[in-house]
Amino acid sequence: MSDVKSRRIVLAARPKGEPTDGCFRTEEVSLPEPREGQVLLQILYLSLDPYMRGRMNAGKSYAKPVELGEVMVGGTVAKVLASRHPDHAVGDTVLSYSGWQTHAIADGAHLRKLDPAAAPVTTALGVLGMPGFTAYAGLLTIGRPKAGETVVVAAASGPVGSAVGQIAKIKGARAVGIAGGDDKCAFVRNELGFDAVVDHRAPDFPRQLAEACPEGVDVYFENVSGPVWDAVFPLFNTYARVPVCGLVASYNDAGPFEGPDRLPPVMRDILSKSLTLRGFIQSEFADQQPEFYREMGAWVRDGRVRHREDLVEGLDQAPEALRGLLKGRNFGKLVVRVSQG
Amino acid sequence: MSDVKSRRIVLAARPKGEPTDGCFRTEEVSLPEPREGQVLLQILYLSLDPYMRGRMNAGKSYAKPVELGEVMVGGTVAKVLASRHPDHAVGDTVLSYSGWQTHAIADGAHLRKLDPAAAPVTTALGVLGMPGFTAYAGLLTIGRPKAGETVVVAAASGPVGSAVGQIAKIKGARAVGIAGGDDKCAFVRNELGFDAVVDHRAPDFPRQLAEACPEGVDVYFENVSGPVWDAVFPLFNTYARVPVCGLVASYNDAGPFEGPDRLPPVMRDILSKSLTLRGFIQSEFADQQPEFYREMGAWVRDGRVRHREDLVEGLDQAPEALRGLLKGRNFGKLVVRVSQG
Repeated sequence: MSDVKSRRIVLAARPKGEPTDGCFRTEEVSLPEPREGQVLLQILYLSLDPYMRGRMNAGKSYAKPVELGEVMVGGTVAKVLASRHPDHAVGDTVLSYSGWQTHAIADGAHLRKLDPAAAPVTTALGVLGMPGFTAYAGLLTIGRPKAGETVVVAAASGPVGSAVGQIAKIKGARAVGIAGGDDKCAFVRNELGFDAVVDHRAPDFPRQLAEACPEGVDVYFENVSGPVWDAVFPLFNTYARVPVCGLVASYNDAGPFEGPDRLPPVMRDILSKSLTLRGFIQSEFADQQPEFYREMGAWVRDGRVRHREDLVEGLDQAPEALRGLLKGRNFGKLVVRVSQG
Repeated sequence: MSDVKSRRIVLAARPKGEPTDGCFRTEEVSLPEPREGQVLLQILYLSLDPYMRGRMNAGKSYAKPVELGEVMVGGTVAKVLASRHPDHAVGDTVLSYSGWQTHAIADGAHLRKLDPAAAPVTTALGVLGMPGFTAYAGLLTIGRPKAGETVVVAAASGPVGSAVGQIAKIKGARAVGIAGGDDKCAFVRNELGFDAVVDHRAPDFPRQLAEACPEGVDVYFENVSGPVWDAVFPLFNTYARVPVCGLVASYNDAGPFEGPDRLPPVMRDILSKSLTLRGFIQSEFADQQPEFYREMGAWVRDGRVRHREDLVEGLDQAPEALRGLLKGRNFGKLVVRVSQG
């Protein structure tokens, strides 16, 4: 045993609908000494992301679920406290996948070293990390926006949506964002430079969205589902592409789902408009990561891609923050500060 | 005016559900003399295809609807009776798009000359025509079956489905057909050489289909929708591809559609299994036609791709034959013999 204890949040029960406090349990464990090839980490920041809700279910999805009693998963930025891996020195800052805990033992081979001088380290959890890469790979590989086309994305102030719209702009397309509330909408238009933004809470949201897309929709980056899908669906142009990246609005829904049955009209338009719907997770496109780091890194440095962070203090706040994330209460990339490092 | 009269069937009323006799009207008109660049045609064969039901609706689809009073559309094989186009001589046999009539004036530039010695001319309406090309382009461009993968197609004794399964076999995939009734199933397995065939009329059809696909489904060529979709859907493997070519089972449905809502589970699996759904019509891939004629022509000559024709005698039978087509009553490519030539 090392002298280091880790406080951690484990999955205590599988949620039905929204994850309650009873779904989580805080534990403290003593960590072993790192073995050859391992490092001991102090977690500085924990990323909270919508996919985590899916991992709390027992059902098979694109990744194996978190088991009951296991530490909740998540990307983390951490400081190396002790190292038995040649690539990592004490004091280094690294990207790890250590989950909801204060300290962790990790395999040194699975860490990415971060340069705090090059960019704020939390960007490795957001615009220059998994969410940014999700936007980059899904939009460019599946969405393939052409100059002059219209690209629509929801959760447009969030880490994926904000990157989707700004990359679409760089490619010469028209970016239309959807967000909830005046502050987020103003941010999307004024700070991120989208061509238009629509508040999904407006009573006439579908009409406003149609007006914001006078030439229809060529790419819809789907990350929310629900009423936003219903508003976008009638606007698709022939050959529209729909990268399906997330369905946040329905992650808490267990089904069965009340009618009417929306599938027949969707299949009809897939046929009559030659639509493409394509689900993906970013790991499928891992071979594009070097290009992403290079290209997106330059866009962030040049200010062509901007981003916003929503920082929550303390690991204990993670369960409530995750619930808020699933309801769109965060404003920007949601990150938990686990310790001051 | 020429001395030639054309008997023709026009759209008299838009159908609600199944097209009744009242939706069609037979007329006789005198044809004008062909002008420069035109030819006068005697129609020998009329192709009947599921897409025709869609053209009878007023709603915008991928092609403009047949207007009330207009001749019903359709591919035809015809004999040249008079020609003012240098490429076409009296007595030639050509592929035209003249629709439901006995004679027509056509622009010579839009005709494809057929060689009756090379293949029976009606194959230009089936395996070596639009249905065969639909199968070829949709399967190879969107479905992209790899050796060892499982390809499922319904209406497997029909002109599209039979080509899909046989081309899948040529590419090294496992072909599983779905058909209605013992005769069609026996034909699909014994004559077309599919690896397995399942009767969609069987009470335990979903279970039989699952047993016929022990390693799941990698490509589902969608041309029917309805209960077949529901049976295939749970079997999709990660990265499965679904070329959406037709939805015959729902062409007569007007909606609204009773619940439960099947869209949320479909979107969930699109995401969790990284599925691709892609609608298409064959004209999108027109640049592949020369290769299709070459490759598919060779496969048909070699007997690697077999086909079956369902011949109906007389233009007057076309409305009833179309109704039967939409219910799967035909057995093979449905062709109407309009005249003996």
